[in-house]
Amino acid sequence: MMKDMPFDFKVLTLNCWGIRYLSKLCSKRYKCISQKLGDASHDVALLEEVWSEKDYMKLKKKLASYYPYSHYFRSGVIGSGLCVFSKHPIIDTLLYQYTLNGYPFMLHHGDWFGGKSVGLVVLNISGIIVNAYITHAPVVDVQANHKMLHAEYSREKDAYHPHRILQAWELGQFVRHTSQMADIVLLGGDLNMHPDDLGNRLLRSLTGLRDSFIEAESYEGPQGGCTLIPQNSFTSKHEFYSFPQGIRIDYILFKGSDKYSINCRALQTTQAADGREFPISDHEAVSATLQIQQGTIQCLLSGAENGAIDVLNEARTELRVGLHVATGHQRGAGRLFGLSIALVLLSVAVVLCGVMSKAFSFILGAEILTEEGLPIVVLCLLGLGASLTALVAATAYLLFTTEIKALRGAEDEMRRQTHTLQHAVINNKGHAII
Amino acid sequence: MMKDMPFDFKVLTLNCWGIRYLSKLCSKRYKCISQKLGDASHDVALLEEVWSEKDYMKLKKKLASYYPYSHYFRSGVIGSGLCVFSKHPIIDTLLYQYTLNGYPFMLHHGDWFGGKSVGLVVLNISGIIVNAYITHAPVVDVQANHKMLHAEYSREKDAYHPHRILQAWELGQFVRHTSQMADIVLLGGDLNMHPDDLGNRLLRSLTGLRDSFIEAESYEGPQGGCTLIPQNSFTSKHEFYSFPQGIRIDYILFKGSDKYSINCRALQTTQAADGREFPISDHEAVSATLQIQQGTIQCLLSGAENGAIDVLNEARTELRVGLHVATGHQRGAGRLFGLSIALVLLSVAVVLCGVMSKAFSFILGAEILTEEGLPIVVLCLLGLGASLTALVAATAYLLFTTEIKALRGAEDEMRRQTHTLQHAVINNKGHAII
Repeated sequence: MMKDMPFDFKVLTLNCWGIRYLSKLCSKRYKCISQKLGDASHDVALLEEVWSEKDYMKLKKKLASYYPYSHYFRSGVIGSGLCVFSKHPIIDTLLYQYTLNGYPFMLHHGDWFGGKSVGLVVLNISGIIVNAYITHAPVVDVQANHKMLHAEYSREKDAYHPHRILQAWELGQFVRHTSQMADIVLLGGDLNMHPDDLGNRLLRSLTGLRDSFIEAESYEGPQGGCTLIPQNSFTSKHEFYSFPQGIRIDYILFKGSDKYSINCRALQTTQAADGREFPISDHEAVSATLQIQQGTIQCLLSGAENGAIDVLNEARTELRVGLHVATGHQRGAGRLFGLSIALVLLSVAVVLCGVMSKAFSFILGAEILTEEGLPIVVLCLLGLGASLTALVAATAYLLFTTEIKALRGAEDEMRRQTHTLQHAVINNKGHAII
Repeated sequence: MMKDMPFDFKVLTLNCWGIRYLSKLCSKRYKCISQKLGDASHDVALLEEVWSEKDYMKLKKKLASYYPYSHYFRSGVIGSGLCVFSKHPIIDTLLYQYTLNGYPFMLHHGDWFGGKSVGLVVLNISGIIVNAYITHAPVVDVQANHKMLHAEYSREKDAYHPHRILQAWELGQFVRHTSQMADIVLLGGDLNMHPDDLGNRLLRSLTGLRDSFIEAESYEGPQGGCTLIPQNSFTSKHEFYSFPQGIRIDYILFKGSDKYSINCRALQTTQAADGREFPISDHEAVSATLQIQQGTIQCLLSGAENGAIDVLNEARTELRVGLHVATGHQRGAGRLFGLSIALVLLSVAVVLCGVMSKAFSFILGAEILTEEGLPIVVLCLLGLGASLTALVAATAYLLFTTEIKALRGAEDEMRRQTHTLQHAVINNKGHAII
């Protein structure tokens, strides 16, 4: 049975900020979230940062009558925090974990432990196949990023930038390769990127996905579609010193196929508390009303390949910068490892000498080195410290090596994609001449 | 320009055993490998265990005139060891790293550091899109695996079994989701699984890929298509005590689409030295001559869904066994961590007491505890040992947590796939009744 055409399809995305015992008013906010999801008749809700599976189970139970289908994506140590609630049958799922997930030693960001991923749920809407992707990119070092946007010289302060470019690339590749048979493609989530950031441009040019905020016929919400706004009492005000009106980092992107076209009729973004006692999250929820109809009304913009090639070249330059930095880090970690091992060996040697002279003095009946107790303790502690440093340095070395491999791999893939696009441009020109 | 139909397409797969300085006759064997690849006119060569990028570059240089297109997949710390040489343009590539890659503490297997993956190269053969996948599954604990096949009670000795089921699942999911637009799908590599192993059956039932050894019209090579044979001077003889004729673990699988059909005309497997001074690897090379033609001659076997459901149920049981074991390991690691931390605190407390009494004795002018030097050193070493144990235990805890998440995630995906298949079976029956 096919759906009556055209029909509306409502999608919501929200970063729930659901860190149990750490996020403010977590359980109260979850109640509001489930109420919001129950009130508004969305077809699909894409939720991020639902870190606890217990919270997901609670939501699932409460929303069972509204959303009979749901999926929770598990990955990493803590989990991906991603889940999807749907009114339509979920016929397939797939998870792709990004190769690089920040650094494990940046504990306060927690990205490495979260196993940041992109999840795919395949929906069957009366025969129409919808591939809905949900993702959560790693935390932006907001200050560095703001500076970066304003002053190119401090770009290297944003340690995550090449990681984000790589993730945008991996996300785009994953979407591109797995959505070939989909009638409709949706991508929602917290991309942790500004609308014109390189990663965002790379993703859109690679996949052909369109931004619902830009395309919406009507919009209701904070200025500029911002989803991180100073009016929200849970956001820290220093995040906005460069962008006083807020930042747009949560997106709903979409595209049709040669069988179905899609456009955005309306977009709504919550505005902080919206009359309630408190906001439902530190991010605003984005809700898009999309219209799906049979037949294609889109056409490939001429010169799209050229634009994509430019973005790819820019991204490759970024990856090479990242590669340069990572190589430096790797070398540093290697040196630190060498030094620590030398220190461990030195401490062990000196301690052994001390112990042996003590043993000798004991055998000889004379107490030659009675005052050495304290230095030996200090040496032992030094040895302990050096051993731990060596272990940390070795781990860091392995991590940076992985980073280098991943960056080089992506750069390779990008080069190939550039060649393929260049080939397409030449062929198109050839056809035009003929 | 389309190719003349039907046409032959030759594929080779070889595990090159290319560990520099460790594999026997490594550089000499690489010379033979490049000679073999140059002599025989293969369309695509899928090589595994090319661990050093330098060796890949050498092969690339030597084979440039035979195979103008090639790709090296980078991942993990060492790399994936996977590379592809092709006569036809490679228009796209993608790499998927398996979620679980053995355990890092099983250093001698090296799987964790290798970042085991599946690589995809998309080839364009005069307009025909061929998705060629290459993979290398982790090392089998061969003895445990052999026992496992003969005596179910020792199944739990094969610590990698759930990992391999998970990888077979991930491999199948990756192939299924990324090959939707491909005209021809090929998968070659060292699957480290016997032909009838659960992982192998799962992969084939999930993707519909067919085994070239089973389908070949003619076959030349060791009995049973074995690729790990006792005649090969590089294999260790104790590997064959349950399978004296050898084991088949390297495969070429294939399938067509609704536009193109494919069948296997001939299969050849090398036989150890084959008259040369030494074999080219510890594995035998598999070479398939496939015939591609327009139109489809395949049909879905009735009851295929039922078979797939049975395999899925079997796989889910295996994953649940793995989950049970991993949970036990996780609990053990947690306990060890607690104990080590207690020991560290105890050592620190005792050492501090000793140091303080020494300081007191120094202040009071009396030497009360001069004999404590040696115990303090021992305590320091104990503290050092306990700290390292705590670190290792914490790391193990995180690893087992990741393992649990991955296994649960896959079990979830499998459950959904089972439901989708059951739904298909019911619908088909419904149609049959109508």
